Amino acid sequence: MALSDLQPVRRNEEGIAAVLGVLKQRFGERFQTGQSVREQHAHTTTYIPNQPPDGVVWPESTEEVQEVVRACAAHRVPVIAFGTGSSLEGHVNAPGGGISLDTGRMARVVEVNADDLDCTVEPGVTREDLNRYLRDTGLFFPIDPGANASLGGMAATRASGTNAVRYGTMRENVLSLTAVMANGETVVTGRRAKKSSAGYDLTRLIVGSEGTLGIITALTLRLQGIPQAISGGVCPFPTLEAASRAVIQTIQMGIPVARIELVNALQMRAMKNYSKLDYPESPCLFVEFHGSDAGVAEQAEMFGMIAEENGGGPFLWTTVAEERAKLWKARHDAYWASLTLRPGAKGLSTDVCVPISRLAECVAETEADIAEMGLIAPIVGHAGDGNFHTLALMDPDDPAEIALVETFVARLNERAVAMDGTCTGEHGIGQGKAGFLPREMGHGVDVMRQIKTALDPDNILNPGKIWPMVE
Amino acid sequence: MALSDLQPVRRNEEGIAAVLGVLKQRFGERFQTGQSVREQHAHTTTYIPNQPPDGVVWPESTEEVQEVVRACAAHRVPVIAFGTGSSLEGHVNAPGGGISLDTGRMARVVEVNADDLDCTVEPGVTREDLNRYLRDTGLFFPIDPGANASLGGMAATRASGTNAVRYGTMRENVLSLTAVMANGETVVTGRRAKKSSAGYDLTRLIVGSEGTLGIITALTLRLQGIPQAISGGVCPFPTLEAASRAVIQTIQMGIPVARIELVNALQMRAMKNYSKLDYPESPCLFVEFHGSDAGVAEQAEMFGMIAEENGGGPFLWTTVAEERAKLWKARHDAYWASLTLRPGAKGLSTDVCVPISRLAECVAETEADIAEMGLIAPIVGHAGDGNFHTLALMDPDDPAEIALVETFVARLNERAVAMDGTCTGEHGIGQGKAGFLPREMGHGVDVMRQIKTALDPDNILNPGKIWPMVE
Repeated sequence: MALSDLQPVRRNEEGIAAVLGVLKQRFGERFQTGQSVREQHAHTTTYIPNQPPDGVVWPESTEEVQEVVRACAAHRVPVIAFGTGSSLEGHVNAPGGGISLDTGRMARVVEVNADDLDCTVEPGVTREDLNRYLRDTGLFFPIDPGANASLGGMAATRASGTNAVRYGTMRENVLSLTAVMANGETVVTGRRAKKSSAGYDLTRLIVGSEGTLGIITALTLRLQGIPQAISGGVCPFPTLEAASRAVIQTIQMGIPVARIELVNALQMRAMKNYSKLDYPESPCLFVEFHGSDAGVAEQAEMFGMIAEENGGGPFLWTTVAEERAKLWKARHDAYWASLTLRPGAKGLSTDVCVPISRLAECVAETEADIAEMGLIAPIVGHAGDGNFHTLALMDPDDPAEIALVETFVARLNERAVAMDGTCTGEHGIGQGKAGFLPREMGHGVDVMRQIKTALDPDNILNPGKIWPMVE
Repeated sequence: MALSDLQPVRRNEEGIAAVLGVLKQRFGERFQTGQSVREQHAHTTTYIPNQPPDGVVWPESTEEVQEVVRACAAHRVPVIAFGTGSSLEGHVNAPGGGISLDTGRMARVVEVNADDLDCTVEPGVTREDLNRYLRDTGLFFPIDPGANASLGGMAATRASGTNAVRYGTMRENVLSLTAVMANGETVVTGRRAKKSSAGYDLTRLIVGSEGTLGIITALTLRLQGIPQAISGGVCPFPTLEAASRAVIQTIQMGIPVARIELVNALQMRAMKNYSKLDYPESPCLFVEFHGSDAGVAEQAEMFGMIAEENGGGPFLWTTVAEERAKLWKARHDAYWASLTLRPGAKGLSTDVCVPISRLAECVAETEADIAEMGLIAPIVGHAGDGNFHTLALMDPDDPAEIALVETFVARLNERAVAMDGTCTGEHGIGQGKAGFLPREMGHGVDVMRQIKTALDPDNILNPGKIWPMVE
């Protein structure tokens, strides 16, 4: 199913006009309807067409979010939560118009409980803001999706990234949420206790719900102690299969690897040229270990032995921060390096996730498909989780190229699901993957829809996302 | 609120009679209505009165579970999933009668994927069965709630136990579930990929839902590599506060402690007498470390230093399995030791969970309350999670004692919630804690109820649990 097959969300012109009046009156300068502001709030880093909201509001408290939601509820007008706009699947588009609720002015760190390794933040705090704030506490928030996303947005899309293999995803790192539901009521989904068996897990229900069940207005997050030592390095392998085997053995041995990134040969070539580094053009693993001085050395040595047993190496590693940064520079610049493979093109970033036993097979089949389709699409993966990305380079103004890339993505999703994987490991469904969810989840989609209908009967919270929904 | 304030679930006599006929016809000897079998299936290890179902059925497949649920749905008759009956809060009682669905004949290990560190099992497999099955693979399933519970039951109650501090609870260790919903449809909640952003987290919604949203018929679980080495030991502390401070520092330092159990002075006295061990009668921490040979030695040494800084010690530890078993013997025998404090009495086991910064305070206030109320109730806690248990010894035939213990539990729950904790860290709500959920979750209970009503409009799945519900 192509994006263009999605059912449109019908516009409620009368309701929208009424809400625009109410919000202008109530929020003054904190409510904007200028075209550029609106388009910016439907910003999406893919080719998905921009569908701007009718207005953008900047509330400053949970109570103000309640006011906005109640105004929208009264007039059955969509309300779409907005963080930093770094999502990739059209999550913040407004296919039926309505109000974009920008959390940018809810960006306070509310409290840090160092003894409990947790903190409470407003949704507009970005992960880099939070880590700057925490710098003197000896603690950090580990989830790193690449972009400097807002924590509310990261929770809403169940974000993860390079070090999820060690620290988990937003699923494991949100202790509790405050959310404004479609009826304007506020729910606190849990307590600061590290675990609970008290009823349904509303925290995990809202994490990953993409703003369709409630608007997050506060988050209590788990923090980690900054490790005493970090070691990291790069290791080439003759084949994807050999690299994947090393990943599997590393995890089976219980080595608590903090990052283990698979980079395919094409991506290595791009990175090597872009970053002017003397790396081989074969699949590589970029790894990082966190722990005590003795611990990270032991982990790196064990990994080196595993790599060697699988025909990989040499494994270059170091605990010196500057040298580590240099070794990892290529990985950090992967996105920019990829774009040089086809100057002028834009990249469509997509992700799938499979059991790690199927990772090599899935990447190899995807490489073959890329070659067969004549695409340029390098691959990087969070190999410890079986999650990988391709960045398909294309001319976003050429409908034929878009159709080709859509076919490629559809085949990739199908391949991942057939291998007992998922059509998205960390980017979310949004609009871009809505067509694939039924294939993956079967009757589960009906259950999701029953929950959505029960909690948001008028479908005002981020309509047209997650599933193709007719209003 | 006392248990006796719960609203009864009304019996649907006509529907029950019809379902008894249907199931007898369909399942023959695998359907039983004898009184002792029925009472055994309402078994609950607390004082909560036994409320037997009208019949017990032993299905052998997901399809047979669907048949049972469809028969019950057609006649609006309760169906209550049963694992091993080791839950503590009346989870398997049948307050409105109906059918107990015993998963004991669905006890196959379906597959083990060693490369992916996961396995798929039927719900009646117990954790000890699974670990026996896995013995030759080098893998194990870490969650240990004490009882040899069924994995279906453990998922349904979001169980955890002593090593959740390292490996998480059932929340983190169930990758995917198959569940039969109230309408008889089967849902598979996820794939074997380690992470996913594909829609609502139905896995986490069903984990901990206590059989009220769906009946689990298969589980895919995360496994761990058996650690190369284990070290463990016991360390006394002068005060609860000192012991708790050591726990907090251990976790802040990032020491990946596998178990860290707090035992209070009364519990130590009972254990010391029962197990004939030469331990001091002061608060103790029982700890265990998993890792490489060098790693566990380093962890134990670091913990020893932390203990000493907090006035604790001597910390006796070993990596030799037999010696470790001897050091930990007292902890393993805690339950039986407690019962010797008041011969002839029965114990009411209850649990709460608070942020670890509040653990010492919460335990100390609880000790004071126990003394003031004249109860005998030793305390053991999974200190790394802020979770602790008391076993209040009482004569279950004396209504005055039951009332006193109910008051004690109510005050304990209130105290934990006031400290930003939960009225249950791992036992669940069932009937016993249903009265406390609204105080803890506020409007969240309404959201849970909306979900329940949407997915089970006739309230046939384990009615009368989680919240006081009028049919």
